[in-house]
Amino acid sequence: MPVTLAGNSYGKQAVRLVTVRRFPDRHELKDLTVAVRFEGDFAAAYTDGDNRGVLPTDTMKNTVYALAAGHPFENIEDFGLLLTDHFLTNNSRASKVQVDLTEHPWEPIETYRTAFRQAGSERRTAGVTRDREGAKVLAGLEDLVVMKTAKSAFEGFPRDRYTTLPETADRLLATAVRATWRYSRPDIPFGLWHQVRRVLLETFAEHDSRSVQHTLHAMGEAVVRTLDVEEIHLAMPNRHHIPVDLRPFGLENRNEVFVATPEPYGLIEGTVRRG
Amino acid sequence: MPVTLAGNSYGKQAVRLVTVRRFPDRHELKDLTVAVRFEGDFAAAYTDGDNRGVLPTDTMKNTVYALAAGHPFENIEDFGLLLTDHFLTNNSRASKVQVDLTEHPWEPIETYRTAFRQAGSERRTAGVTRDREGAKVLAGLEDLVVMKTAKSAFEGFPRDRYTTLPETADRLLATAVRATWRYSRPDIPFGLWHQVRRVLLETFAEHDSRSVQHTLHAMGEAVVRTLDVEEIHLAMPNRHHIPVDLRPFGLENRNEVFVATPEPYGLIEGTVRRG
Amino acid sequence: MPVTLAGNSYGKQAVRLVTVRRFPDRHELKDLTVAVRFEGDFAAAYTDGDNRGVLPTDTMKNTVYALAAGHPFENIEDFGLLLTDHFLTNNSRASKVQVDLTEHPWEPIETYRTAFRQAGSERRTAGVTRDREGAKVLAGLEDLVVMKTAKSAFEGFPRDRYTTLPETADRLLATAVRATWRYSRPDIPFGLWHQVRRVLLETFAEHDSRSVQHTLHAMGEAVVRTLDVEEIHLAMPNRHHIPVDLRPFGLENRNEVFVATPEPYGLIEGTVRRG
Amino acid sequence: MPVTLAGNSYGKQAVRLVTVRRFPDRHELKDLTVAVRFEGDFAAAYTDGDNRGVLPTDTMKNTVYALAAGHPFENIEDFGLLLTDHFLTNNSRASKVQVDLTEHPWEPIETYRTAFRQAGSERRTAGVTRDREGAKVLAGLEDLVVMKTAKSAFEGFPRDRYTTLPETADRLLATAVRATWRYSRPDIPFGLWHQVRRVLLETFAEHDSRSVQHTLHAMGEAVVRTLDVEEIHLAMPNRHHIPVDLRPFGLENRNEVFVATPEPYGLIEGTVRRG
Repeated sequence: MPVTLAGNSYGKQAVRLVTVRRFPDRHELKDLTVAVRFEGDFAAAYTDGDNRGVLPTDTMKNTVYALAAGHPFENIEDFGLLLTDHFLTNNSRASKVQVDLTEHPWEPIETYRTAFRQAGSERRTAGVTRDREGAKVLAGLEDLVVMKTAKSAFEGFPRDRYTTLPETADRLLATAVRATWRYSRPDIPFGLWHQVRRVLLETFAEHDSRSVQHTLHAMGEAVVRTLDVEEIHLAMPNRHHIPVDLRPFGLENRNEVFVATPEPYGLIEGTVRRG
Repeated sequence: MPVTLAGNSYGKQAVRLVTVRRFPDRHELKDLTVAVRFEGDFAAAYTDGDNRGVLPTDTMKNTVYALAAGHPFENIEDFGLLLTDHFLTNNSRASKVQVDLTEHPWEPIETYRTAFRQAGSERRTAGVTRDREGAKVLAGLEDLVVMKTAKSAFEGFPRDRYTTLPETADRLLATAVRATWRYSRPDIPFGLWHQVRRVLLETFAEHDSRSVQHTLHAMGEAVVRTLDVEEIHLAMPNRHHIPVDLRPFGLENRNEVFVATPEPYGLIEGTVRRG
Repeated sequence: MPVTLAGNSYGKQAVRLVTVRRFPDRHELKDLTVAVRFEGDFAAAYTDGDNRGVLPTDTMKNTVYALAAGHPFENIEDFGLLLTDHFLTNNSRASKVQVDLTEHPWEPIETYRTAFRQAGSERRTAGVTRDREGAKVLAGLEDLVVMKTAKSAFEGFPRDRYTTLPETADRLLATAVRATWRYSRPDIPFGLWHQVRRVLLETFAEHDSRSVQHTLHAMGEAVVRTLDVEEIHLAMPNRHHIPVDLRPFGLENRNEVFVATPEPYGLIEGTVRRG
Repeated sequence: MPVTLAGNSYGKQAVRLVTVRRFPDRHELKDLTVAVRFEGDFAAAYTDGDNRGVLPTDTMKNTVYALAAGHPFENIEDFGLLLTDHFLTNNSRASKVQVDLTEHPWEPIETYRTAFRQAGSERRTAGVTRDREGAKVLAGLEDLVVMKTAKSAFEGFPRDRYTTLPETADRLLATAVRATWRYSRPDIPFGLWHQVRRVLLETFAEHDSRSVQHTLHAMGEAVVRTLDVEEIHLAMPNRHHIPVDLRPFGLENRNEVFVATPEPYGLIEGTVRRG
């Protein structure tokens, strides 16, 4: 029976890069995790064990460090563009190169300029994909953990024989936002990221939510309408906080005491685009 | 500016289900994590907060438990088929329902028939996707952690200015196999899973490996050639074990002492199919 | 052969409690994980399966929620004192009750008063232990992740045949501080926690570090000297950031490019006390 | 105000060591994580930044690899004895050296002798502590995950105003056993570990359990009575599996359908010793 290699890719994951730039009055700290992925004409390695076209993933890792040394960058998108350009230019068998970058944020400790505190689990992300036609950039963020204690309801849903969920006009709404977006112009300054994040946070806080879906859409719509963003995808797990039933103890729960449950959780996704 | 909801889905993740069937001579224990995901005509929930079509994810969870009660199953694929059929039949707005199932294995402790030991991190998986045309089943496994201490090389690769990796004719090869496959006939007995797993393990053990790519392809090819499998996708992270340089201590490392490194790691993927 | 039950304890771990207090102008959000542990005269349960003295751990959990409902608190130490008092008063067999509390911080999103962002992995902790003599309180924090990019050296250490580490006058110093301390007066306002945290951060940032040990001691000394703290224990893993050797690529690393390594890591501990 | 360094320790954690011994007919694979910890006269490093007595933790790591090269071992306890002896002999300032070893198990794939499968999350542990008086060895295991589907009850417990837990004569009992023990003779062959593990498993399976406490004690008692073990400490989290209430769906749960809950969980500990 004939068999076909119907698809293939390879690369290096979890390359941990920290850079320090030393200015007279302060240091600038960058903390990244980088992943590199090649697609292309690598079938001989799979079928025949012919490694002549296989740039080692160890070399991909080295390249990340070597290029970081000579090319300071402000926005991770720019470093991703540099890396994909290098890899595609220097590897003729690769037809597509993808570089995913995750930035771990550090903030100066008070007014000290050479000491930093890790500001949280929230991360900035970028995905740069380049083929012989050009490059595409997806900006993003993940693990932006937020909670609303007002203006969140879930009512009016259908009920079947397995539905026991009570309707609620006033629930906690907690999630860990993951967002990726495409800017509407190729020459956008990537520092616009900070405004996208701000609009997402403000809309989450302000929105009169009838469901996670409803708030997700409002967040995406606000970004697309007010900033140079063509399309945004949002994934928002519903981290349920359930009011504890205190009646068995002769007490009333005035919507004040909750149990946070890690599982199961809802997962709501949506893409909002212009047009 | 007009905006469009260009895509949406919602569902429940991480529904933890354990079932016990009690036979006279033994108990049968099943331990599953189930995820349910709907796509369809749910735009009004996003854009207008209209929940009239939104079956609560809490109801999805309840349904998993309720159907598990009345329908014992041997293979998780069958439970996925049952669940997708139920959801699609009873929710006219849903155009596609996906149920992902992960089975955590337990083995009887010695000859005891009502006591079990969790046999490892390895898991069996199934993904069932159903739309109005019918259902598709992907069988799979993940976190099958294996290592070869012989018959593994990596040589003959290209070198550029950033390449420092030495060639090696005898290295450790360790990975955590993730595989998903599609059977070649719809009426296949899903217990064939055990044979796929066995062929994957045996081929990994026997293969004279020139690279992860090479072994991945051999594993996929063996499955597709010898069993009723149409197509298999394999993802194999290269968990590097690096020989420790003992020369600074006046010692020789005869390929016996290694440091296991969690990151960075290679990631090799490929799809092998018939034809 | 006679055997003895030489020690025993039991309790409930990982009780997740979220409370919301609703003021006219803002909401106050508390997010805690609570653990309860009893020691005492429980041997009959172990040796004879006699459960008559064993308050269920499920009841411990319920009690956490029930007492949270009626007793709003500002500092977690106060809630720990309340819980230990309740448990010891109502369970005559218990000779010692320990309650460990971990607070997960949330910050208001900008100026919104009913929407919050999880501010990071850093957590406030308290351990309250009570026996028939009275209660002891340990305040603390954990996962305070910090890094210095200046004023950190490690030189002058002894070398043996297995030593390859180069001396360095200018290295990155990164750690995740875990601290527990005992106040010097029983009537201390527990909000002093915020000043302890501030002194730890400032001393870390300012200190001219010759080693992790050196900085750990400076941090502990500053707390004990300047605040009402009798004794502080600090545990500081050394999260190594290693300069990448760029010479094979014809480049120089001017102390700017580092690889962050998760393992192995140093672990330095010390206790500083008055007197 | 005078301050004192009231305690201190330092060392290296998470040293990952994999060794392969190559016999004509098979390979032997060992996979360990090692931690080294010194106590002693190291105050000058803390108080004055004087590093002259501080063997770098990097050297500790190197020593683990260097000694592994020349000293193959069957049981991890022996490697711990070797390491502590080396460190204490060669570091006059150290008064106590502790080495903790964790072994990750691999099993041959079927009859292949140079290919292995990671057999699970269960781990063998050893803690060796040595001071100028001699060495102490604690053998152990952790994450031995087991479940009983019969012969487990929890009844007859006291009820207070916060107790809602129903009594049950037939529940699931699941735990992840962590055990540490001290052998009764210094010249014990450390391979006795396998028998301790077997007795723990068999007793768990056989025992007519009235509570986790009851089964924990039976397990410890069986080990101490039947093997050369002086004392054993057991920690057994109660991983609750809660019967799903199917009555709202018009169904009966005949003790067959459960939700596995990760938190909260009970935690039961006890020490059984001879005499």
